[in-house]
Amino acid sequence: MGKQAIGVVGLAVMGRNLALNIESRGHAVSVFNRTREKTDELIAEFPDRKLVPTYTLEEFVDSLEKPRRILMMVKAGEGTDATIAALRPLLEKGDTLIDGGNTHFTDTIRRNQDLAKSGLHFIGTGVSGGEEGALKGPSIMPGGQRDAYDLVAPILTEIAAKAPDGEPCVAYMGPDGAGHFVKMVHNGIEYGDMQLIAESYSVLKQVAGLSNQELGAVYTEWNNGELDSYLIEITSKIFSKKDDETGKDLVDVILDRAAQKGTGKWTSQNALDLGAPLPLITEAVFARVLSSLKDQRVAASKVLEGPAAKPFSGDRAAFIESVRRALYFSKVISYAQGFAQLRAASEEYKWDLDYGTIAKIFRAGCIIRARFLQKITDAYAKDKALANLLLDPYFRDIAANYQSALRDVVIAATTAGVPVPAFSSAIAYFDGYRSARLPANLVQAQRDFFGAHTFERVDKPGSFHANWS
Amino acid sequence: MGKQAIGVVGLAVMGRNLALNIESRGHAVSVFNRTREKTDELIAEFPDRKLVPTYTLEEFVDSLEKPRRILMMVKAGEGTDATIAALRPLLEKGDTLIDGGNTHFTDTIRRNQDLAKSGLHFIGTGVSGGEEGALKGPSIMPGGQRDAYDLVAPILTEIAAKAPDGEPCVAYMGPDGAGHFVKMVHNGIEYGDMQLIAESYSVLKQVAGLSNQELGAVYTEWNNGELDSYLIEITSKIFSKKDDETGKDLVDVILDRAAQKGTGKWTSQNALDLGAPLPLITEAVFARVLSSLKDQRVAASKVLEGPAAKPFSGDRAAFIESVRRALYFSKVISYAQGFAQLRAASEEYKWDLDYGTIAKIFRAGCIIRARFLQKITDAYAKDKALANLLLDPYFRDIAANYQSALRDVVIAATTAGVPVPAFSSAIAYFDGYRSARLPANLVQAQRDFFGAHTFERVDKPGSFHANWS
Repeated sequence: MGKQAIGVVGLAVMGRNLALNIESRGHAVSVFNRTREKTDELIAEFPDRKLVPTYTLEEFVDSLEKPRRILMMVKAGEGTDATIAALRPLLEKGDTLIDGGNTHFTDTIRRNQDLAKSGLHFIGTGVSGGEEGALKGPSIMPGGQRDAYDLVAPILTEIAAKAPDGEPCVAYMGPDGAGHFVKMVHNGIEYGDMQLIAESYSVLKQVAGLSNQELGAVYTEWNNGELDSYLIEITSKIFSKKDDETGKDLVDVILDRAAQKGTGKWTSQNALDLGAPLPLITEAVFARVLSSLKDQRVAASKVLEGPAAKPFSGDRAAFIESVRRALYFSKVISYAQGFAQLRAASEEYKWDLDYGTIAKIFRAGCIIRARFLQKITDAYAKDKALANLLLDPYFRDIAANYQSALRDVVIAATTAGVPVPAFSSAIAYFDGYRSARLPANLVQAQRDFFGAHTFERVDKPGSFHANWS
Repeated sequence: MGKQAIGVVGLAVMGRNLALNIESRGHAVSVFNRTREKTDELIAEFPDRKLVPTYTLEEFVDSLEKPRRILMMVKAGEGTDATIAALRPLLEKGDTLIDGGNTHFTDTIRRNQDLAKSGLHFIGTGVSGGEEGALKGPSIMPGGQRDAYDLVAPILTEIAAKAPDGEPCVAYMGPDGAGHFVKMVHNGIEYGDMQLIAESYSVLKQVAGLSNQELGAVYTEWNNGELDSYLIEITSKIFSKKDDETGKDLVDVILDRAAQKGTGKWTSQNALDLGAPLPLITEAVFARVLSSLKDQRVAASKVLEGPAAKPFSGDRAAFIESVRRALYFSKVISYAQGFAQLRAASEEYKWDLDYGTIAKIFRAGCIIRARFLQKITDAYAKDKALANLLLDPYFRDIAANYQSALRDVVIAATTAGVPVPAFSSAIAYFDGYRSARLPANLVQAQRDFFGAHTFERVDKPGSFHANWS
């Protein structure tokens, strides 16, 4: 019996769809699941596909060509450790395990180093695009041993999404945890994008009084310009969706309590560890948390009054254009922060990340896919060592031309009592980043006053302490 | 030879000052340091004090009354673990170790549980007030076994700072890591306070053009009112301090690059774990990080332009009063977030924290000591289960009367291009917290659209998924 070029362990929806995706490119795929029912269901549903069911890990491992390539799509954390522990004694030097789960990059670093002791390769890869992406073409962010990546690259390239120019959305990210790290930052950026869109919705509705129908039209129009992206596209569609039960607009029937799976939180926590300013995404994470405190908010709304509501009196079309510019410029600022975090991580963990390539593989398959990513790739093509995207000429122009719109929107929302934590954080970061002098001199004076923590001087190097009393 | 009631391990400045503080209350104190030089120096400097030098841990432990009380003031982390490992075999059931270091609360939980297996008590305590506080009276936040606290309470009570009404600034916080947790949040709040003061300075200087002399007068005046606090007091003094070398105002000579020791970061990371919105303190942490990127900022200041500078044209006194109100209300919002984090922690870790008592022991000794803390104690005295400080009548009134000033200051700063990340975050949180409906319904619609993550409905319980295509 012939051996298969790759096997998939874990046949929940992501594993199963990736197996079907690989198979659709002409490869027979060995499949294994901890409980045999899932395996049998998959084979029964797709009897004509070249999926080879196996019912023990021994059988599974024996069914694979050497060096073996095994894609694990199991529950991140203990599930991954248990699967590795069970597979490890069955594998041989040179075999490659691929973890496609939603894994924290520090676990991936640990596993990569641990398995390397047995001569086993370990690729930790981000896979973005949800169920449909897994089946038809996700964006793939693999990290680990370069040799191992080369062994699995042909298959990953076949199954990856293709960008508008035909390039596959997969590339080697870097050693050990680099792939899962990039996926984490992708998800953090996704939190920021979604919060910014939510704030644009909030401002358009509450300040300018747009109806759902008008909102749908606005996002449809925006999707034809600079903001062209998957998230704006689905936003435009959301506003025209009716609730089957009540006939109302579905968006109004959905409870305003946002859930999360924790990757945004990881991104913020890591940025704090790295000392990389990531306020916008962090505000987005906290905004979801605040939204989840629905009962408290309803109670607070009855006792904490805001400014009196006023009918909108300005030029509606001009205001909508200001919100569009505010959204686009804030998105630029959010990505500038996210890519600066990648840069800090690349230095800290010695990954030598290629930021232009990262933006490239985000162009299709993943949730944050957007026309605008090409501008990031272009910026790093011009200057590989760019410290911050805001310094690139294209983004500098956006800053110059759109900052007054962002200021106007923050001011309009603050005046009206409409919360815009991410928009506000965006302009505060922009103004902070472009400040040659910040009031941190006072903070240092205070720290030296109460704790003798010392300060630096503007006129010469060294550490100094003043006698304050 | 008589035995001592307490011993201190670790004679760096904090340990040595605490030993001197204890001795000054009439107790002989056994002292030990890993290297004997520090012990000898201390004894040589204070030959007439009842400090009993010991040079082995055996001698140290033997010199103490049973059950023993040992205060460890060693380097947090490995230093603490090494000291515990060395002491453990010498101790007996019922002895109490006190860790007064700057320890992450999760380490304290682990050590408390581990030592309990040997029948040893472990108190993790926050000690705030710096070197001078340690010597004369710090604010003390102990957590651990209640019995063990009772054994050490008499001494801690004697050495603690005394509030204006004479009450000692020490109280039992709760089990295992509760004391170090409260200290961590204290430090996070300190980051918020310092950033808010820095932003008030920035706005007064850059928008209204106040000189250092005028700034000093403003903070001095503020310190006589609602803002009366240690940090405002030292801020007022900072503006009148001259540089010995150049004769310039020292504040202008100090480099605007703020350092940090990580406790603010811990507070934010924990808030993210708990799902407790803490955006203001987190913006303060990121503001310090951004300040540290001085070279990038200087480069950016040359290519990223902001609004054209305009001379201040309003009523100066009225603007200063707006900034004062913005500062006070933002401080209220910051504490509301910090105390909500304490509440979330109390539930998560089963600590049964007493928020009114926590505010009480912050009233003297520690860095955030302030008149305003009495209002927090009063609020919890009225309603122990208060979900958020903003809902208390006193703070509701502040919100009602001061929010327009905060809006005005955010708008003025945003217009002028002066970064106010903490002020902006404060008003965004306030407006979010008092919003019965936030745009998170759109976020949930998006999540269900791209990931089938389901949503809740406003009209009935349950989880729902729409067919979006």
